[in-house]
Amino acid sequence: MENKEILLASRPTGLPTAENFQFVDSEVPSLNEDEVLLRMTYISVDPYLRGRMREGKSYIEPFEVGKVIESAGVGEVVESRSANFKAGDIVRGQLGWRLYNVASAKQLMSVVPGVPSSASLGVLGVTGLTAYFGLLDIGKPKEGETLVVSGAAGAVGIITCQIGKIKGCKVVGIAGTDDKTAYLKNELGVDEAINYKTENVHERLKEYCPGGVDVYFDNVGGEISDAVMPLINTGARIVICGQISMYNNEKFGVGPRPQPFLLINRALMQGFIITDYMPRFMEGGMQLAQWMMAGKLKHAETIVDGFENLPKAFLGLFSGENLGKQLVKV
Amino acid sequence: MENKEILLASRPTGLPTAENFQFVDSEVPSLNEDEVLLRMTYISVDPYLRGRMREGKSYIEPFEVGKVIESAGVGEVVESRSANFKAGDIVRGQLGWRLYNVASAKQLMSVVPGVPSSASLGVLGVTGLTAYFGLLDIGKPKEGETLVVSGAAGAVGIITCQIGKIKGCKVVGIAGTDDKTAYLKNELGVDEAINYKTENVHERLKEYCPGGVDVYFDNVGGEISDAVMPLINTGARIVICGQISMYNNEKFGVGPRPQPFLLINRALMQGFIITDYMPRFMEGGMQLAQWMMAGKLKHAETIVDGFENLPKAFLGLFSGENLGKQLVKV
Repeated sequence: MENKEILLASRPTGLPTAENFQFVDSEVPSLNEDEVLLRMTYISVDPYLRGRMREGKSYIEPFEVGKVIESAGVGEVVESRSANFKAGDIVRGQLGWRLYNVASAKQLMSVVPGVPSSASLGVLGVTGLTAYFGLLDIGKPKEGETLVVSGAAGAVGIITCQIGKIKGCKVVGIAGTDDKTAYLKNELGVDEAINYKTENVHERLKEYCPGGVDVYFDNVGGEISDAVMPLINTGARIVICGQISMYNNEKFGVGPRPQPFLLINRALMQGFIITDYMPRFMEGGMQLAQWMMAGKLKHAETIVDGFENLPKAFLGLFSGENLGKQLVKV
Repeated sequence: MENKEILLASRPTGLPTAENFQFVDSEVPSLNEDEVLLRMTYISVDPYLRGRMREGKSYIEPFEVGKVIESAGVGEVVESRSANFKAGDIVRGQLGWRLYNVASAKQLMSVVPGVPSSASLGVLGVTGLTAYFGLLDIGKPKEGETLVVSGAAGAVGIITCQIGKIKGCKVVGIAGTDDKTAYLKNELGVDEAINYKTENVHERLKEYCPGGVDVYFDNVGGEISDAVMPLINTGARIVICGQISMYNNEKFGVGPRPQPFLLINRALMQGFIITDYMPRFMEGGMQLAQWMMAGKLKHAETIVDGFENLPKAFLGLFSGENLGKQLVKV
């Protein structure tokens, strides 16, 4: 059976371009024991994939040039040689950028029942768990505290903001368009929102956080974080979830050093990778699902149609085209 | 009775000078109930005092201009109106830069018996506890890991290096003279030592830490820390104990942002203040004393003679004149 797949054609320098991706025609291989054949329905594009396009040390191994790119995806089982899945089942997993994937049953999970399958890539998938464990385990927000979220209208950001509200925090979100700030305030109940492209982030934060910042959930890094650091409180927790502003830089940026602020405020700054929380995924997933059922956690997706638009949807992340989770419908 | 004291004459800009200190003659006040009169024997000068000379937010309240400076000190009880102390007792506390102090018995503690009283300001005092809790509680070194210590020949640094060795780490110390690096290696058993004034810190660290850096105990900040960050391992812990390179800057320095390294390595960076560990001081003090008795923990002091040399001894900290704890003998 004919297939299409997208390879990493070359390692990007700076912002990736269409030339870094290569579409190739291929054949679907035959199934071995315990494998299933999936017709992909949704493929997730995520900022962290940029890191995997780079050579050298990062928290997951780099993609290889000439090999297919992988990310989280949802597909329908077309054929199964596994006792766990049958034709028609909808499953999720870390899967290639292909129309059809042959996958080992071991690397697949059923999607969450009763909600659209795309939610298993967003609020009820790794995205939601990243917000959940990053905020609750490292950020440890307490009722009445002030939480600042950068990249607040991104996939992880919108969930982080909402969990912050559930936990009784004052939440201030930073995003890049007026539509996004309006969405954060009007749809998600975020207390204040700042458009970093048109407003002075530091001045606005001073105004919106008169008692200082207790938790800073950072998806973005760079100058936005520089603006937050002087406002942190004693005992503040800074969650380094992402640094999207730097993913396309060949050298990490230079800026005011944060260490003196950490010292003065005996504050904590910590990076994490969600896979370290694997043993607690069930706990997080069930809590997120409960909040979603109770109407406390809204779900936002930006869905681009067509497998051929995968690279474009990925590149759009770096110009902030997505509100919430960016997905491609295959 | 006649007394002498040292006031903060003005707030320093940049490196403090003799003009920022004022020597005044005064009278020893009479004792109230529960107070004791002390003849000071040792006064500790510490880098963190520079922060208290600055106006504005820090982890302890600033000194006031025209008021006496305070730091840790040891004195002999000359007269007592407290049931807890009698004339001849040697006590320690947070005390004024004076020849004689009148202090409430509540703010005093006996020195540790069986060792020189100056040790109660160093290895068995707040200095030792700072190394102990910072390294063990935040740094969490494990046997076989690599620990890098900046300001390694300073008061906290020499104790941190030795606790690192006790815990089975490979220890690499960074200091500012060849005498200091020789002391670290030959007297304290530190595995490798780098003179940051004559050597390329980043290159030396690469050579001495071929397996990367698991714990970085930072007393110094600035460019030395910039050189360490690219070498940290997955799960590294960075203890922000001091940032002496910046204490005299009016603005915190600019440098390569550490957040991307924290993200890639899911690493932790945390500031702390030793007073947060007050409920565990007894535990730490007893462990430090045991190690000292067992000959595992050496004690280094640089003692300057004469009350009149207090400001000079303090200023010497910023040019690295001290090996180990800097004290003034009154």
